[in-house]
Amino acid sequence: MDLDKVLYGGDYNPEQWLDRPDILEEDIAMMQEAHINTVTLGVFSWSTLEPEEGKYNFGWLDTIMDRLDQAGISVILATPSGARPQWMAEKYPEVLRVNERRERAHYGYRHNHCYTSPIYRQKVRAINMELAKRYGKRKQVILWHISNEYGGECHCPLCQEAFRNWVKDKYKTVEALNQAWSTTFWSHTYQSFDQVESPSPLGETMLHGLNLDWKRFVSEQTGDFIAEEIKAIRDAGSDIPTTINMMHDFYGLNYHQLAKLIDVVSWDTYPTWHKEPEILTATDNGFWHDFMRSLKNQPYLMMESCPSSTNWQSVSKLKRPGMLDAQSMQAIAHGSDSVLYFQIRQSRGASEKFHGAVIDHYGGRDTRVFKEVTKVGEELGAIRELVGSTTHADVAVIYDIENRWAMEDAQGPRNKGLHYVEAVQKSYYAFRKLGLNVDVINMDHAFKGYKILAAPMAYMFREGFAERVRDFVAQGGIFITTYHSGIVDATDRCYLGATPAGLTDLLGLRQTEIDGLYDGETNQLVPEDRSIFANQISYESKYLCQLIDVTSARVLMTYGTDFYQGQPAVTFQPYGMGYGYYIGADVEQSCYDDLYKRIVELSRVCKPFNYIPEGVEVTTRSKEGCDYVILQNFSAMNQHVELGEGELLLGSRSGKISPYETIILRRDKK
Amino acid sequence: MDLDKVLYGGDYNPEQWLDRPDILEEDIAMMQEAHINTVTLGVFSWSTLEPEEGKYNFGWLDTIMDRLDQAGISVILATPSGARPQWMAEKYPEVLRVNERRERAHYGYRHNHCYTSPIYRQKVRAINMELAKRYGKRKQVILWHISNEYGGECHCPLCQEAFRNWVKDKYKTVEALNQAWSTTFWSHTYQSFDQVESPSPLGETMLHGLNLDWKRFVSEQTGDFIAEEIKAIRDAGSDIPTTINMMHDFYGLNYHQLAKLIDVVSWDTYPTWHKEPEILTATDNGFWHDFMRSLKNQPYLMMESCPSSTNWQSVSKLKRPGMLDAQSMQAIAHGSDSVLYFQIRQSRGASEKFHGAVIDHYGGRDTRVFKEVTKVGEELGAIRELVGSTTHADVAVIYDIENRWAMEDAQGPRNKGLHYVEAVQKSYYAFRKLGLNVDVINMDHAFKGYKILAAPMAYMFREGFAERVRDFVAQGGIFITTYHSGIVDATDRCYLGATPAGLTDLLGLRQTEIDGLYDGETNQLVPEDRSIFANQISYESKYLCQLIDVTSARVLMTYGTDFYQGQPAVTFQPYGMGYGYYIGADVEQSCYDDLYKRIVELSRVCKPFNYIPEGVEVTTRSKEGCDYVILQNFSAMNQHVELGEGELLLGSRSGKISPYETIILRRDKK
Amino acid sequence: MDLDKVLYGGDYNPEQWLDRPDILEEDIAMMQEAHINTVTLGVFSWSTLEPEEGKYNFGWLDTIMDRLDQAGISVILATPSGARPQWMAEKYPEVLRVNERRERAHYGYRHNHCYTSPIYRQKVRAINMELAKRYGKRKQVILWHISNEYGGECHCPLCQEAFRNWVKDKYKTVEALNQAWSTTFWSHTYQSFDQVESPSPLGETMLHGLNLDWKRFVSEQTGDFIAEEIKAIRDAGSDIPTTINMMHDFYGLNYHQLAKLIDVVSWDTYPTWHKEPEILTATDNGFWHDFMRSLKNQPYLMMESCPSSTNWQSVSKLKRPGMLDAQSMQAIAHGSDSVLYFQIRQSRGASEKFHGAVIDHYGGRDTRVFKEVTKVGEELGAIRELVGSTTHADVAVIYDIENRWAMEDAQGPRNKGLHYVEAVQKSYYAFRKLGLNVDVINMDHAFKGYKILAAPMAYMFREGFAERVRDFVAQGGIFITTYHSGIVDATDRCYLGATPAGLTDLLGLRQTEIDGLYDGETNQLVPEDRSIFANQISYESKYLCQLIDVTSARVLMTYGTDFYQGQPAVTFQPYGMGYGYYIGADVEQSCYDDLYKRIVELSRVCKPFNYIPEGVEVTTRSKEGCDYVILQNFSAMNQHVELGEGELLLGSRSGKISPYETIILRRDKK
Ligand SMILES: [Zn+2]
Ligand SMILES: [Zn+2]
Ligand SMILES: [Zn+2]
Repeated sequence: MDLDKVLYGGDYNPEQWLDRPDILEEDIAMMQEAHINTVTLGVFSWSTLEPEEGKYNFGWLDTIMDRLDQAGISVILATPSGARPQWMAEKYPEVLRVNERRERAHYGYRHNHCYTSPIYRQKVRAINMELAKRYGKRKQVILWHISNEYGGECHCPLCQEAFRNWVKDKYKTVEALNQAWSTTFWSHTYQSFDQVESPSPLGETMLHGLNLDWKRFVSEQTGDFIAEEIKAIRDAGSDIPTTINMMHDFYGLNYHQLAKLIDVVSWDTYPTWHKEPEILTATDNGFWHDFMRSLKNQPYLMMESCPSSTNWQSVSKLKRPGMLDAQSMQAIAHGSDSVLYFQIRQSRGASEKFHGAVIDHYGGRDTRVFKEVTKVGEELGAIRELVGSTTHADVAVIYDIENRWAMEDAQGPRNKGLHYVEAVQKSYYAFRKLGLNVDVINMDHAFKGYKILAAPMAYMFREGFAERVRDFVAQGGIFITTYHSGIVDATDRCYLGATPAGLTDLLGLRQTEIDGLYDGETNQLVPEDRSIFANQISYESKYLCQLIDVTSARVLMTYGTDFYQGQPAVTFQPYGMGYGYYIGADVEQSCYDDLYKRIVELSRVCKPFNYIPEGVEVTTRSKEGCDYVILQNFSAMNQHVELGEGELLLGSRSGKISPYETIILRRDKK
Repeated sequence: MDLDKVLYGGDYNPEQWLDRPDILEEDIAMMQEAHINTVTLGVFSWSTLEPEEGKYNFGWLDTIMDRLDQAGISVILATPSGARPQWMAEKYPEVLRVNERRERAHYGYRHNHCYTSPIYRQKVRAINMELAKRYGKRKQVILWHISNEYGGECHCPLCQEAFRNWVKDKYKTVEALNQAWSTTFWSHTYQSFDQVESPSPLGETMLHGLNLDWKRFVSEQTGDFIAEEIKAIRDAGSDIPTTINMMHDFYGLNYHQLAKLIDVVSWDTYPTWHKEPEILTATDNGFWHDFMRSLKNQPYLMMESCPSSTNWQSVSKLKRPGMLDAQSMQAIAHGSDSVLYFQIRQSRGASEKFHGAVIDHYGGRDTRVFKEVTKVGEELGAIRELVGSTTHADVAVIYDIENRWAMEDAQGPRNKGLHYVEAVQKSYYAFRKLGLNVDVINMDHAFKGYKILAAPMAYMFREGFAERVRDFVAQGGIFITTYHSGIVDATDRCYLGATPAGLTDLLGLRQTEIDGLYDGETNQLVPEDRSIFANQISYESKYLCQLIDVTSARVLMTYGTDFYQGQPAVTFQPYGMGYGYYIGADVEQSCYDDLYKRIVELSRVCKPFNYIPEGVEVTTRSKEGCDYVILQNFSAMNQHVELGEGELLLGSRSGKISPYETIILRRDKK
Repeated sequence: MDLDKVLYGGDYNPEQWLDRPDILEEDIAMMQEAHINTVTLGVFSWSTLEPEEGKYNFGWLDTIMDRLDQAGISVILATPSGARPQWMAEKYPEVLRVNERRERAHYGYRHNHCYTSPIYRQKVRAINMELAKRYGKRKQVILWHISNEYGGECHCPLCQEAFRNWVKDKYKTVEALNQAWSTTFWSHTYQSFDQVESPSPLGETMLHGLNLDWKRFVSEQTGDFIAEEIKAIRDAGSDIPTTINMMHDFYGLNYHQLAKLIDVVSWDTYPTWHKEPEILTATDNGFWHDFMRSLKNQPYLMMESCPSSTNWQSVSKLKRPGMLDAQSMQAIAHGSDSVLYFQIRQSRGASEKFHGAVIDHYGGRDTRVFKEVTKVGEELGAIRELVGSTTHADVAVIYDIENRWAMEDAQGPRNKGLHYVEAVQKSYYAFRKLGLNVDVINMDHAFKGYKILAAPMAYMFREGFAERVRDFVAQGGIFITTYHSGIVDATDRCYLGATPAGLTDLLGLRQTEIDGLYDGETNQLVPEDRSIFANQISYESKYLCQLIDVTSARVLMTYGTDFYQGQPAVTFQPYGMGYGYYIGADVEQSCYDDLYKRIVELSRVCKPFNYIPEGVEVTTRSKEGCDYVILQNFSAMNQHVELGEGELLLGSRSGKISPYETIILRRDKK
């Protein structure tokens, strides 16, 4: 995408107001006042676009698009496959999903269609082509929004058949399949591929290899569906770029694979501000911003966010004054080229009628939300030069969805909770506190270019991973891993011999036993040399403690209690031109902070500031010749940072930064 | 009903003891000793009355009714439709309910039949007519008890068909239906009424208009069934009055509509005494007594209550000595003309074998329960003049089931709990602490005659409600409403423009944003003028805080913290000859107490006593020429009230009142 | 069984490693090093043994058994019915279980087959006969392990038919059935046996008589299946003894009945060591050891235990050093002639890949677990003379599964939790603290030979129980019972008249009301004469307080609060040559301790030591001429016991005993 503005606006559903042309006019007037320059149309419009099979109704959309065009508002156009019309479900029940208990859904909800169904694919292709033919060359349309928030799975006979073929393609012989899934256990040996069925509480859920491959299949089948949606658009002659809108901490799909199918990554974010200390929410939100950015290593879009409070969280908490600004600027900071809301105008009825919107049921301009939205619009205009700037990171943390699928599905060592995301975010946060940009990547991502690579709880070492890590370290990289790493291969079969498989020499140790701790139970990590750990006497650890046999590593910390008191817990050793670090336990954040600070100091990584106050997030975007350093205060107090040289785009030159405030500084590249 | 005694007795199931005539004789002897004068027969007797299809067996019932007659015991006769015989389910599966997942029930439980099934209706009609012909003119029979504790819903094809017709009747055109249910959202537009289906977790549960109308249909269909049951009785020539036994805080039916079908309201109450402070339990129980009384504004019956502990609550706690008396007298106080128990004799087996009864498995007279039951019987004899006396209330609170259905189904602003009943009861309790009778009414009830009307969380303003409130206030009424009011119309569509819809001028404000608070989070309400609020510095609020734009109202309290600190929270203003009050937050009880005390003082409402100690409930029943003032001590200590003039029917002239004790005072009307 | 060694070893699954002969060789070498002398083969091997219908594959098993034989390792051979091959489910769906919602399972899991299916029985018979013919006379095979951990139920049409026949056989007439199940309640009267159906959430779950008989049927039908499995083995000419492996606190089967079908009892135990204070875990584990031992009053086997941590508990906690030894010796102490593990070698994949094993994925000898396993093996060799020794107990506690089924299914008096097992274990623990062996028996067990018999919460008095208790006490026995006893007969129908039914004269009291206490609520039991209760002022009670009318008993304690303050709570009275004790409330452990200590002191029961420190478990096994007194320290500190005379087999002569340590002392019989 080649943008000349920060996209500002959001989801707009004029089809809900076709009987109120006065309201549609008022909408456009209010958008203009609020500096809105982009809307997303067509999400969930299928029933209006094709009220009867094959009879299309585009008139209303033509009209609204013309009016938007006149008002200088760009359009992101959605394909309508996120929710099918009722007539389709009635006539072709195969389009309805079947759940894991093998019950066919009735018509209802949204996102409830089989991704395999030939009829559904054919219907989607037809409407997509119609849309593409009619609007696909319009200059005003800047992006295709393919469907909406893909997710879910279907266990219908068509999907079973597709899954069987997928399995057959992958394993070729039943013997290989039985080997990979360890079916001999509990006598589950397959005699033929025809016996393969998706997991079900009525059938099998304990064959982890099956579960894992089923998740892969679901993700790939969804990808296949996306590819067909896009193909229809291209076949109809439209070359406008495509996106899908992804979600926060979404478990069901492998976004790394899906990102390859589209031109631009976008995502929907709804942080629960004011529930926990702001900086924690900001860090989690920032983590997922960085995950989305890293998918393609290029600017992405924040496709949905809420201008006020959502209606579907357990408590609908209002955003405090300034929070909307901070949330919007955080997206820009992490690499988004847009601030888009769900939604421009609140619907009158149905399930999301209380979801926050730019224009609410009251409909006036004299609302707090409308005023804040307008202010954000102004600011985005003022910083438009950031559009297209990119993000460079010296350090990366690995968050790998296949690793998570396998680890969380496996039974043991702590069925009550492994806290994988928490563990990854501890590494992420420790880097971020130093003001470093961080890439969030999966195991397959290239390591070259990074100076430090953290791979917490890297349970699954897929083929080649250990080798690539050894190369990385041999050439000077710093590699950090933790407890419960390098245990299984890509089919969730345990490695025989010492673990982390393939890295025991690099790390100078092998993992022996792992101890699960009950909720509330703790151990301590005690530094061998306090002076390099901020003079801390010990750090608290919980959940899991890995015992290790150290062969050659140097011990940095030992356990403080239990029968393994005094045994090594944290180690490092040089390897080639680099270093391998190992963290044995799920230890508190401050331990990560102190350790990573030390690691960064000893590395060639540069920090943007020497000192960053607690609660301030620092992020950098870059363009040819200059860096944009962005500071945001997510603490409850005024903070102060020595800005140094650079030109100020936003905020105060003094470096004083109020709660929720943002400073943007343009620095020449050195 | 024209009664000459307080009905005293309860459910009696001689069909369980037909092989033990000695026990049946003993039962009657013990009833007489305990002053029992009424029993309910026939609940769940269908299998005994009609053991094979069309073959009736009334002999045992003739005998028992004769024996009761000789003993001077009246009979409330139940129709047996609460549980059908097994042969019927076997031969006609359509009588069995289908659940929301569309699974047909197997035979079992009770209350498990389709209310639509023509066969079930026909079988019920036949047995009802047989009963009515045989017993429907007997003087001993004083009331028809139609079925038992109606409830539940059926999603069978017959019910779907009936629902579709109901929807069609209501909306006439599919366009009107789509408009009313806001189906455009998520593309759920109906193309035809044939596509309408009841909500289902396998289909649609998020279309709030559908959910709401389904609840209305279920309630009306149940009413239609009741009407048919009664018609059978009337067609068979019996003119004896009818009742249905309703339940505590029952969510599934609109009792206001059902009450119109019957002659007398009755209900079953099982308070969990000794779980919370007694007065809280008494207030909740009193609230539902008043709700039942207000349904027809006439004396009603307490149809079931437990003489000891139930067996189906999570913990079966014994009633402390005196509690049974207090519970019984509370019913009388609130307007019941009966004290009836479930059950006279405990069953030997099956699910309720440990439910408390007048006669237990031991079977002796030397039990604490039997002695207490006998004492209550004596007292009821002594106060028989209260029978038929009515209740007059100057104040009313609105508890509206349709409002609740809609509000609790809607998503937002606090899915974790809106606490509607709690909010209504806070208003109720504040009035009750002043000794005022309170009517508990729905929005459709006439307002004329009330001096104060409280409508907490009146989310749904059905057509005409706002107008009627404006009339009421214009003519001198005091109207109180709260946060989250006047938001949607009768189909759960949001009002556009300022809210509370139609009352912003009356109240002098409009609602803007509403803030949800997490569990444990609080705000404060700070009086502008402490002197009129018992010098309280502030009151705690939780769950929800409504922000308001005040146009002309006078501010009584403001918020104490958060970004809306200092903004108005409680207001009032004169309107016509009356006043409109607005309470913005879910504030603690004592705030309601202080505010309502002030409102009552400034109104023309008279209190029965100047001072009522905490924990004492005061209620008044009236007859031509006199009032019966009833005081009950639900605190743990002796209390004292200045009784003033009047004749004492129960208790001590001194006004001293022990825990669980009751004083009844007859006062001449002024 | 006639053993010449403590069986040491465990489950071994070579079929998982047929492609790795090197590993199979290594396994045997490591077993020998670890003193392993026994393995269990064939559990879950069906798919490998019969990969296609009727085509058997025994070659691999022949080979492995020969190799084991050469290594001097005995074999326990399992029948493979615990998990059926996939081809069978595919071809004969009737072998798959149907759940209570009447859904037929898909293929998957294990233990998921209909026990009624003629086809499944026929297939099991065939494979069992093949196994028996081939290996059933082999000297190396010392025991048949019939299937694996029987459990679960099936609601398929075949099982419904079998259940109907079972009910018909039991009750003969529908009238008797209706009477027994109290079907008149809620009009559930059966017109024919054909209407009988198993309980279902879609049908009936509240008819307690039906629920109870269904549980009995399931247990008996499982027994019938077991009998057929064994018959096949015998028909094929094998006379080797049989066992089934039972489970900890297993609710679904009546083990007393199943024990009659087999030659040796065995069970699988997985205590959650280090979760609670060790002695509590040890006491619970000891209780179930004694339950298993008492089933046949002869040595039994510990068939499965974990050498490390399991993978399926909520937290996989490591065993601390020494814990494995203590766990193993506890089995020996309570009468086991084996220490067997699940499993010898960890599987590489599937659901239990992280379950602890003698040989883990690492595969080395230098693991903590392998070293500890080896040490246990050595010790077991040193104490082999204990093999075959038996256990004599003067005292018994009754834990009766039918009593539990009925009591926990009944509604009331405390649906939130009755805590039956806890109540039984309090009596058990009070005896155990005195060093007494305790038999854990059901109500049908002979009482003769015991000096004290405790029957806590003996809700169900089956026919003849009260008479047998009266005989026992008349002849000098001491009988202790508690609240909620003697309430119902064998069909869960309440006794009419005074309770505990048939024992009111023996106890000198009758039960009146029972008060349920909320969680957190307490009462106190206050001794009448403190001097006989360790000068304790009062003991705390919770959950349930039984009120009683004392006729002739002597009151030992009274209630401390509530309206029944001062009323009797604990009583006793002489009866014949013995005594009857009654405990009215669920009182804290120390009350049981003080009371039982007193009772034992006044009885003719001998204690092994005068003083036993807290946390030390003392158990005695006996042989002709000598006793083996076994002391185990489950406390966290060193303890000391005056050993007195005897020869030491294990531990220190000084009587000093470290945490997790065991002392075994051989004493001549007096
Ligand atoms: Zn599908
Ligand atoms: Zn129906
Ligand atoms: Zn079956």
